[in-house]
This record gives sequence, structure tokens and C-alpha cells, in this order.
Amino acid sequence: MPDNPTIAVLGTGRIGKMHAELVARQVPGLDVSAVFDVYTEGAEAVGADLGVPVAANAEEIMASDCDAVAICTSTDTHVDLVVAAAEAGKAIFLEKPVSLDLAEVDRALAAVDAAGVPMQVGFNRRFDAAHASVKQAVANGECGDLHMLRITSRDPAPPPIEYINVSGGMFRDMTIHDFDMARFVTGSEVTEVFAKAAVRVDPAIGEAGDVDTAVIMMTHENGCITTIDNTRQAVYGYDQRVEAFGSKGMAVSENPRSHTTEIHTAAGTNQATIPYFFLERYIPSYLAEWSGFVEGLSTGVMPVTGIDGRAPLVLGLAAMKSVEENRPVAVNEIA
Amino acid sequence: MPDNPTIAVLGTGRIGKMHAELVARQVPGLDVSAVFDVYTEGAEAVGADLGVPVAANAEEIMASDCDAVAICTSTDTHVDLVVAAAEAGKAIFLEKPVSLDLAEVDRALAAVDAAGVPMQVGFNRRFDAAHASVKQAVANGECGDLHMLRITSRDPAPPPIEYINVSGGMFRDMTIHDFDMARFVTGSEVTEVFAKAAVRVDPAIGEAGDVDTAVIMMTHENGCITTIDNTRQAVYGYDQRVEAFGSKGMAVSENPRSHTTEIHTAAGTNQATIPYFFLERYIPSYLAEWSGFVEGLSTGVMPVTGIDGRAPLVLGLAAMKSVEENRPVAVNEIA
Amino acid sequence: MPDNPTIAVLGTGRIGKMHAELVARQVPGLDVSAVFDVYTEGAEAVGADLGVPVAANAEEIMASDCDAVAICTSTDTHVDLVVAAAEAGKAIFLEKPVSLDLAEVDRALAAVDAAGVPMQVGFNRRFDAAHASVKQAVANGECGDLHMLRITSRDPAPPPIEYINVSGGMFRDMTIHDFDMARFVTGSEVTEVFAKAAVRVDPAIGEAGDVDTAVIMMTHENGCITTIDNTRQAVYGYDQRVEAFGSKGMAVSENPRSHTTEIHTAAGTNQATIPYFFLERYIPSYLAEWSGFVEGLSTGVMPVTGIDGRAPLVLGLAAMKSVEENRPVAVNEIA
Amino acid sequence: MPDNPTIAVLGTGRIGKMHAELVARQVPGLDVSAVFDVYTEGAEAVGADLGVPVAANAEEIMASDCDAVAICTSTDTHVDLVVAAAEAGKAIFLEKPVSLDLAEVDRALAAVDAAGVPMQVGFNRRFDAAHASVKQAVANGECGDLHMLRITSRDPAPPPIEYINVSGGMFRDMTIHDFDMARFVTGSEVTEVFAKAAVRVDPAIGEAGDVDTAVIMMTHENGCITTIDNTRQAVYGYDQRVEAFGSKGMAVSENPRSHTTEIHTAAGTNQATIPYFFLERYIPSYLAEWSGFVEGLSTGVMPVTGIDGRAPLVLGLAAMKSVEENRPVAVNEIA
Repeated sequence: MPDNPTIAVLGTGRIGKMHAELVARQVPGLDVSAVFDVYTEGAEAVGADLGVPVAANAEEIMASDCDAVAICTSTDTHVDLVVAAAEAGKAIFLEKPVSLDLAEVDRALAAVDAAGVPMQVGFNRRFDAAHASVKQAVANGECGDLHMLRITSRDPAPPPIEYINVSGGMFRDMTIHDFDMARFVTGSEVTEVFAKAAVRVDPAIGEAGDVDTAVIMMTHENGCITTIDNTRQAVYGYDQRVEAFGSKGMAVSENPRSHTTEIHTAAGTNQATIPYFFLERYIPSYLAEWSGFVEGLSTGVMPVTGIDGRAPLVLGLAAMKSVEENRPVAVNEIA
Repeated sequence: MPDNPTIAVLGTGRIGKMHAELVARQVPGLDVSAVFDVYTEGAEAVGADLGVPVAANAEEIMASDCDAVAICTSTDTHVDLVVAAAEAGKAIFLEKPVSLDLAEVDRALAAVDAAGVPMQVGFNRRFDAAHASVKQAVANGECGDLHMLRITSRDPAPPPIEYINVSGGMFRDMTIHDFDMARFVTGSEVTEVFAKAAVRVDPAIGEAGDVDTAVIMMTHENGCITTIDNTRQAVYGYDQRVEAFGSKGMAVSENPRSHTTEIHTAAGTNQATIPYFFLERYIPSYLAEWSGFVEGLSTGVMPVTGIDGRAPLVLGLAAMKSVEENRPVAVNEIA
Repeated sequence: MPDNPTIAVLGTGRIGKMHAELVARQVPGLDVSAVFDVYTEGAEAVGADLGVPVAANAEEIMASDCDAVAICTSTDTHVDLVVAAAEAGKAIFLEKPVSLDLAEVDRALAAVDAAGVPMQVGFNRRFDAAHASVKQAVANGECGDLHMLRITSRDPAPPPIEYINVSGGMFRDMTIHDFDMARFVTGSEVTEVFAKAAVRVDPAIGEAGDVDTAVIMMTHENGCITTIDNTRQAVYGYDQRVEAFGSKGMAVSENPRSHTTEIHTAAGTNQATIPYFFLERYIPSYLAEWSGFVEGLSTGVMPVTGIDGRAPLVLGLAAMKSVEENRPVAVNEIA
Repeated sequence: MPDNPTIAVLGTGRIGKMHAELVARQVPGLDVSAVFDVYTEGAEAVGADLGVPVAANAEEIMASDCDAVAICTSTDTHVDLVVAAAEAGKAIFLEKPVSLDLAEVDRALAAVDAAGVPMQVGFNRRFDAAHASVKQAVANGECGDLHMLRITSRDPAPPPIEYINVSGGMFRDMTIHDFDMARFVTGSEVTEVFAKAAVRVDPAIGEAGDVDTAVIMMTHENGCITTIDNTRQAVYGYDQRVEAFGSKGMAVSENPRSHTTEIHTAAGTNQATIPYFFLERYIPSYLAEWSGFVEGLSTGVMPVTGIDGRAPLVLGLAAMKSVEENRPVAVNEIA
């Protein structure tokens, strides 16, 4: 890898634009070489703002001399782009999910393996200081043997139905972060999944064939029992907590507040809301994720691998089957 | 009911002694008329301390002119004493659980119904100011429609194996409080139970045929999904939390602290432990429970009824079956 | 001292009644032998409730065979009763303040010294678990050298003007607790006092010649600078905090909450009010105070002495002079 | 003001470098035109990093066509640069303090007035979301009439003695922020100052003629009594709190945490440290400060004015005199 590696950003929607801006402005050791989006106007606006060229198509980027690519396009284009990038010898940053289809995920992983390029999957929450601190407390034994893990992951408001329609369903779109978190914190694979799901927030979500509320129980190889709860709408904000309980203690990442002022009146004490939007909460985690990528470029070892991108999809498929059949599903029934 | 009603306390073990002392010293409107225990020395010590007579046997109490009896004896004697008290026309305060056997519970309830005496079952946590405030927030609509409920109920240390042996198992001994809490907070009956359990704390508990760690998922008639987690050992103290999530917000009863001092050093901020022992946490709830009983004596309507004593046992039996068969169990499979 | 010492309670107003009830019902090792009040009906009600005789006058109590007396009468009667009790050889529990007049305090202390009886002054806050924990953190070096101490002491609502009229003024009535706390936590005497005071809550308090809002800065022999702030009305409750800052860290006793439920909505998170009334907050401290007294009866050494009763009055007089002359007042100008 | 205003940054030490980077990378609506520092290498490094030219001297900048200048040089050069910038018609961003000398401050303000250029003084804490929220609660009446204000402002560790030597002393260097905060939150001028100060952290600070620990009491025109406490070393981090108490309630900006994970063990609950360094805590306030400046460029009204730069110096001088003479000092004794 050269001293001053460069990355081209494919996809300049909300998340791709954010990545391009972060890398260009706040990530030491990595520069944006070009951007691309099928929606040309979007790419041009980002390119102009950052002072970087806009590629005409993905092939142009793969043929360029950039060292890495960030794949932030729509999910259905991920695997083809991963394969192309791998074949072009580029290091890869890939937004989650890898794909909604397990065979496709395997095709992507095979291409990456064959090419021997480093790839990092974008599970940014691993880099959140609070969640990472829970992981650390578990890893260094502060919690003792892990008995129970609890992940609260609630969006403040549902996405548009158009998004729901192409999302692959809540388990593969939203819970996938929590499946990853369960593996990350416990350091242990999941063996069984039981899930209940419902439409409680918006009937339109149900009409689109999806759910908006779910609770998932999972058993890990190490005996830990994990509970995840999800909703598409927590009116009080973006509720993101992880609680690890073990023989020696408990580590909990509580929610931050928009600010730390408290108002005390005869009605009690009021604290500011928790962050409402995922960017308010997680920008520092995206920055840390990029630091991990830059370090991975030089060491060749990425902190979140293709395997880490595949496993949560398997759990999502197991959860879907569990809801459909109302029974616990062994993970090895899926893959 | 007379102006100055009296109650005789049967059973002067830890919990019976506490009830006798609370009523004698801190509950206005109710006096202790006598105490009894098969362990005579214990009864005599409590009687001497409180200045009340010690009955020779339960029959003597049933034949006395006390207005009510508090049944705090071992669980296997509950139903016979309930039947005797009902036939004697006494109002009844009955410690949980009513019985480990559903047919026996029904026998007790039938006797109470036939006699038309008021009976209150001792689910003290309903009277805890924090949990009651969560229930209130749900009942008055502050949380909107209830989507998810989460009950954390963790003991600081396991009881002696001798206790485990006669406890009826964790679900009927410990979780029974949480099954009650789920019905209390949601105001809705449970239709399905899925449970996972394990021995993580002490192999001796497993050798005794019991479990010490469990997570239970339940579905209510109103669609709420409840998760309960239990352990016999949380080294950081008696962890008792209830979190109700709904369309308009969330109400959570957090743990109190032994005291409110915080120590700030270069290592962070340290808060005092949460209460370690259930009496530290719940004495005020026992006092409030007795206020409810005294009020019930005059109105004839008790705040926690025989039905409230029966339903959690059904859920315990469903949970046991779910663990055994590793599948969700419909409550109407049990009763 | 006999195995089962007894105490007679003089004064059955709010605070005396509370002490009588606590001792009679919840303090092991001490019994109430009799009660007395110039307001006969009050004394009779308490006596009847507790089943103890009512004395006709204080002399009857001094002549009785009780081991100790609790002096909870109006402040202006304190010293004569202390002298009489000392001469009668009784151990003494004396509510604060000893007297509003320094010469009178000295007369009381001289009588106690001459008689060699143990006396405890009722600074209950020393026995509050949180404040005591701050003291402990300072005493055991957790805070290092103490640089600054901050005492927040705010009543929820002003007392009636009739009370203000005989209170001796806010500094001798209310701040006296905080002067004691400053000595208790630092373990160091105060050398200089600067105070600002104002009437902000109720003009009627000003018309009565008193103030309702004050901030006091003090320097201790050990160099610690203490700040106390007082108000007669904090609408959000009884705000009682102590913050000790030193070279190694900070210990803070934060306010407890009425209960620990939090309500999360789109408007933020609301916690319950802090306790509104001093009895809600401090009943456990009164119980601990009585345990200290019972222990003092057997050891002969009381945890809060006559000297501890005198010193805060000196600081109150210094604060009054400081406000009057708008300058720092050296404590040795007073006494 | 043009659509795309530019600013030249004078001084590229720690604070100037930070401002240059923030403006260049994260402040929409303002570009850095050039940088300058007498320490040429520092300016060149910043210029290279940001891709902006380095000026040979301040005159070159004043003669350039930039719209504004940021004066982040050493304090003793501030006034001459303000005068030069004003005469050149530049809008001015001026780091605190304006000057250590009141006559010099007045010379700067006169030049700005004469030129009619907008000037903002760098009291960034006004833009901290938590402190600003306290100010807002006071301004909109949530606290009612303001009775007491408390400002805690503690550095984590003292600066080098070389810095102390040129700082003008703690009151003009560090407390100046708190004097500003007192005026900002109360919206009322200070009439009297009483201060106590000591050397508790490092004798070398005393040998340099300065203090490292201080408590200041002030009275405002509106009757509010403000207390400020300062130390050069709080080992637990950068402790920055503001507490406004009034007739209707209290607003408090508490400290944030480095992250929100809590570890619960048998030893209690441990929270992460508060931010240690002022940049960790206040970067968002610097960004908001620049937004205010950009808005001020277009409206001509700056959110923190020259008057706001002058008043805290007067209070600092009053505090110094108060310490020296151990008496309350009326502000109109100073100016």
C-alpha cells in the first residue's frame, strides 16, 4: 500500500456522501480519488463540494489507480461491484448488508478470497466508544462468564415505504446490525434463533410484507442467551443500548443525551432527549471505522471481515423462518 | 369489619416475622392478635418481642376472634390453611405462591369463593413505588399502545440448596413475581410462552433438578411481547427493573442505590451498589401492601386477588413445558 | 448504664413525636419511659399511641428513674432543661440548636461537663448514608487534600411566619445544619466567614427581620474553602447535596428521588421529584442517629458532642455580622 | 459581505490551528484565505495541510482582500492587531481575552467602533449546547426569577509555568470564561465581587505569583448571587457545570461522559470519566461559535461583542483586588 492511499467512493446517497465527506475532511491517511453514482447530479454535487473528479461509471473507477473502493450503492449492486473490485485488486470498504441472498454473499466472499484483497464490512456500531467498551469489558473478563446479552435497537421513525420495499425486511435491514453486535460482544457464534414479530407501528409496513416490531432470543455456542428487541419507531429517539451480564458483573452502554442539561421543577427533573437521528449518535463511530480501515490497509487485516458480513444474514434468515413457523430454528438449518 | 381489626400471623420464619413486625409497629389500622409457628421457639421470640400471645396451633387461631389471618407458612401448607381460614370466615393475607399445584390452587380459590371472604395474595412488588409508577404510566396512556415489556429480575445470590429443593423450581418460586408483574403492568393476559433456561451459577442447582438462569418471551392478548430475564446471582446486587415501551413513550423503573453518593476520580465516577437484599429494596412495598390490605378489609375488595395468585402459576407451568420441549407453549395447553 | 435503658421524651411537637415513635417502635436497645409536653393534649395523644405514661411536668421526669432524656421542646427552654437533666444525672439527647445565645450554650455545656453525663446534639444529617459517605471518602483520603467544599441546603417551602419569628433567623435555624456539616466533612475548624443574604422568596420574611436566601463562603484552618447556599424555597423539593473536592478526587452526595421510574417521551426523559419533605429524606438518618445514641450510652462517648452544638452557632453569629457589615468576619471576633 | 466570505487566521498555535482547521473543513459559508504566525514553521504546516497560502506578516493580511480576520495570536498582540484590522475594514474574530489591560481593551473597542466593523470575541462556552440550554431556560422564564447561579470551572491539569507567567493570572486567563458565563446566563451586570484564592495544586504556581484555586462570590444588578469555583487541577477531568436556581426551578448543565458505558460490579457502578481535555468537551461549541460568526457577517450583528470582551476583565480586576484586600469590591471601583 502506498504512503498516501486513495479511495474512490461508489454511491453518493446519504450514506455514501457521508463517507466521502468524512474521508475527505476528517480521516488522516486516506484521500478520496473520485466519486460515482448512477444518479449523476448527486455525484457531481459531492464531487464539486469536495473538489474531486466524478467518474462516468464504475468500470472507470475499477480501471483507475485508486487503492481502494468504498461500495455504498444500493444493496442489489453490492456483489457485482465487490467482484469487480476484487478482480481489479482494490481494497474494499463495503456498506452493510453484503447482500440479501446468501449465495450471493458467498460469491462475493469467494471473489475477495481469490483476489486476496482486504475487505471491511461497514458495521460501524462496533466502533462506537460505548458499545466497544462493553465488548472490551466482556473480552477482558470484567463481566466474568457471559450469561445473558441484551440488545435494544430502536429507530426513531420508520423509513419510507419505498425503502421498506427494497430493504429485504426488518431482520436483514435493521436487525442485521444487532446480529453483528451479538457476535461481536460475545465472541461466540449463535446456534439457535427464536423470533416474534408484529406490525404495531404502521399498517402500511405490514401491507408491504414486512414487520416493524420484533423480539429475538438466541442461544450462543458459549451458552449465552441473547435477546434483541427492535422497533421502527421509538418516539423518544434513537434508542441503542447493549447490556452484557455475566458471573462477575454487567456492562451496559446507555444512551447519550443530545446535551447534558437537566431542568428541575416541581414536576420532576427533565433531561434532554437522546439523539434522534443515527448520524447524531454514530458519526464518531464512522470516523473510528475509517481509522480501522486505514490501519487495515497497512496491516492487511481488516477489523470487520467478509465472514462478519455473512453470519448476520444467516441469523436474519433463521429469524424469518422462526417467525413463519413459530418455533426455534437451529442456525445449521440455514447454512 | 370492626374499627380496629386484628390479624393473626401463621408462620414466623423470615417473611412471617417481617410481616408481624411491620403490622405491629408500622401499619395503622391493624393489630396483631397472635402468632403461630410449628417451630415454637421462633413464634415465642416474635410474640415476646411484639407483646402478643403465641397460639398452640392453627386451629386455635381459626377459632379465635381475630378478623384476619396472614398465612406465611411453608408453601405446602398454604391451601389447607386457606380452606380452614375461609371456613372460619377470616379475611386472608396469603404469601406467594398459593401452591405449586394448579388443582390445589383451584381448591383454595373455591373455598374462598364459597365463604365469600376477602383474600389478598402477597405480590408485594405491585406496591413498589417505581414499578407501580410504570404500571400507572401504561394505564393512563403515557406510553400509548404497549408494544414491548421487559422485566429484569435478578437475585444477588442463590438460596441454600435445601430451599431450592422445596421451591418448586425457579419458574414457580422466583419468576412467579415477574409473571405477576407482566400481567399487572400490561393489564392483559398472556397467550403464549417460550423459555430458555440453563445452569450457569452453580452446578449443585442443576443436580437438584433446577435451573438458575432463564430468559422467557411471552405474547399477551393485546399484542405486547414481554421478555423476562432471571438469574439466581447478580453479583452487583438485587437487580429489579421493569421497562414498558409503547407508541408514545417508555416508562422504566430503574434500580435505586444504597445511597446517592458518587465518587469521581481519574478512574471515572463510582456510584454505590444497588440494594443487595430484597428487604433493603422492598420494605416500603410491603408496608404499602399492608395499607392495601387494610383498605381492602373495609371495602371488601382486595388489590391482588386469588385469580392473580393462580395466573402466574399457569405461566410457570407453561415455561417449564417450553423449556422441556424447546417450543413456544400456548397458555391454554396448561389451563 | 442498665441493659435496657429508658428515655423520657420532653416535647411532643412534630420532631419530638417523631423521636418518641422511632425510639418506641424501631430502635433496638432503648425504650420510651414517658413523654411530656406543655401542650398536654399532644403529649397524651403520643402517650396513648405508644402506650407510655405522660408526665405532669419536666421535674417529674428528672426525678424519675429513666436513664436518659430527649429534649425536643422549643429552643428557648433547652438550656434550663439540659442543666436540670445534667444535675439529675441523665444522659441527654438534645435537639438542635442548643440555644440562640452563646452564653447560654456555654452554661449548658458547663453543666454537662460538671455532671459528667453524656450528651448528643441532634445533627441528624451526619448520619445520612450519603453525606456520611462523603465524610468517609474525605477522612480515608479518597479525595486527597481537601481544597473546596460545597453544601447545597434548600428547603422546599418556607415555614410559617410564626416559626420565622422565633427561629433566631435563617443562619441559626437552617444554616446551622450546614455549618455543622462543614465541620463534620472537613474535620477542620472555620476561621473566617463571608455571607450575602437577601429576601427573594417572601417579603413577609423580610418584614419579620429575617432573610430567605443566602450564600456563605468560609475558610477552614486546613485551607479548605467552603461555600454554602440556602434558600427557604426550592420548588422542586428538598435539595440537600454536599460536594467535597480535593487533590485526588471529588465525593458528592446527590439527591435521591421519590422513586426511580423514568418516563421517556419525545419531550425528553422525566425523573420523579426529589423528596419534598425533610422526613421523606432523613428518616433513616434519625434512626441511625438513635443507634449512635444507644451505642454512646454504653460507651459513654457520643458521636455529636456539646462542642459540636456550640461551634455552628458561632459561625451563624459570624455570618450575621458579615451580612450586616458586608465584610469577611474572623471567627475569633465572635468567640 | 460577499456570498463566499473569506477569513485569514493570525496565529497558528493550538487554538489558531484548531480554528483554521474547523473553518476550512467543517464550517459552511466561510473559507480560509491565508494563515500567518511569527513562528513560520507552524504557519507553513497548517497552510500546507489546508492548502492555503501563508502570509509573510500581518500587514500582508490586512492589505489582502479577505473579508475577515481571526486573531489567535498571543494576548499582548491582540489590541494592535484589532486596531489594524479595524482600520483595514475587516470583520474580526478575536480570541479571549481581548487584553490584560483595561485601557488597551478600550483602545481596541474604540477602533472597532470608529471603523464600524463587526467583531466577535471568542467566548465559545456560550455556544455549548448544555450551557446555552441553561441560559435559554433562564431567559424564557423556566427558572422564574433568578436567585442563585453556580459555575464550576475546573481544569484537569495546570498549564506549564511558562504559560502561567504570561497568562495575566488565573482570574484573567481562566475565570474570565466564567465571568462571561455569569453575565451570559443571568443577563445582568455584576455590581460586587468577593474572592478567595490559594495555591493548593502546585507551589511553583505560587512562586510565579499566581494562584491555582479560587472561589468567587458576586452580586448582580438583578439580585442574583453567583458563585464561581476554579481549580487548575481536577484529576477526574475537565469539570464544567453551570447551575441556575430561581423561583420556579433549576437548570443545570451537567458534565458529559467520554462514553456512556456503565460497569456494574460488587463494588458499585462505574461510569467513564468526563472529558479530560477542553477540546474533547468543547469542539461542538467552537463549531457553533463559527456558525454565529458567519451569520453575524451577513447580519452585521455579532453574538458576542466587544463589550462582552471588556466586562469580564473588569470582574477579573475586581477579583484580584478583593483577594489582595480581603474585602468585597464594588465593580465601579474598577471602571
